[in-house]
Amino acid sequence: MKLHDLARSGNCYKVRLFAALANIPLETVAVDFLHGAHARPPLSDLNPLGQLPILEDGARVVRDSQAILVYLAGVHGGLAWWPAYPQGQADIVQWLSFASNDIQHSLCAARLVRQFGATLDMAAAQEKSAIVLAVLEQHLESHDWLAIGRPSIADCAVYPYVVLAPEGDVDLAPYPHIARWIDRIQALPGYLRQP
Amino acid sequence: MKLHDLARSGNCYKVRLFAALANIPLETVAVDFLHGAHARPPLSDLNPLGQLPILEDGARVVRDSQAILVYLAGVHGGLAWWPAYPQGQADIVQWLSFASNDIQHSLCAARLVRQFGATLDMAAAQEKSAIVLAVLEQHLESHDWLAIGRPSIADCAVYPYVVLAPEGDVDLAPYPHIARWIDRIQALPGYLRQP
Repeated sequence: MKLHDLARSGNCYKVRLFAALANIPLETVAVDFLHGAHARPPLSDLNPLGQLPILEDGARVVRDSQAILVYLAGVHGGLAWWPAYPQGQADIVQWLSFASNDIQHSLCAARLVRQFGATLDMAAAQEKSAIVLAVLEQHLESHDWLAIGRPSIADCAVYPYVVLAPEGDVDLAPYPHIARWIDRIQALPGYLRQP
Repeated sequence: MKLHDLARSGNCYKVRLFAALANIPLETVAVDFLHGAHARPPLSDLNPLGQLPILEDGARVVRDSQAILVYLAGVHGGLAWWPAYPQGQADIVQWLSFASNDIQHSLCAARLVRQFGATLDMAAAQEKSAIVLAVLEQHLESHDWLAIGRPSIADCAVYPYVVLAPEGDVDLAPYPHIARWIDRIQALPGYLRQP
């Protein structure tokens, strides 16, 4: 299986992290993002949205980091990370949407501004970051993991841009429950740090 | 089952539409959004993000329209709309992310500006709308449905803000394949129009 990858992308890191935790072999192929390789064929044929990561598993192509997590967990990762019962799946999808939408337009956007000079609304991103982190902190006050009472792809989807938040000038110090969740994730067997 | 609902919300319409198509009984409770009922207890306890819709099924609470679709389909809708095989689930989740992120910040944002006076970047929303619709048009050129070769919750998640696009001054005339997909959805048994 081949992951079209960008080392500093938190979305790509979601997939690399999960593959490491679930012990799924993955060949990563570095994309020359700086020179626009993601926006040209052959990659733009694989994902017309021009986003990374993209997974190729034989003839099957999966775009979107959340969908790749579902695919990898469901096909190669076993029920531990993505259970078969729909209540558990819905519990996880709540957090996949949280990662895909709320985190993308807060913690991720703030980091894009600070680290990559993106022309996004930094004040809005930081304001939304505070909401996102407050929701997460409140949830983790009474839960060790985001969904289904154990580590799942929900944690893998949410963790990267949270742990990278300081790169967008978002301070994690006010969130002790998030800090302990970060520690729990980092203590999982196979844990992979973002380079 | 109780849906905390807002009549003009496309996110709430995703759930109402799917429940109608799958013949799932749903009690809708109108939320006084204008006076901020979504941002106060008891609703803010059910969803601290302050978003609608929210589903209550007995003691279980599900927030986020995409997660509610997975929940309703998985628990009450049968395998037709949300299959048990992970390749199909990942195929659908690609479009759930597309709805939750890409559509939310394009077609939905443009409509929020035009219909509700939201202070969002209209130029950015319309520019992104063109990308989103081009991706959709290209996909529908060779597919009748968004995922798994049949109607699924992917179509229910994407359809509302597409059919409502003209309310955000986004013209659907240049997209004949999208128009035929809209016709196919409207021809499904049980189809429910947005009020």
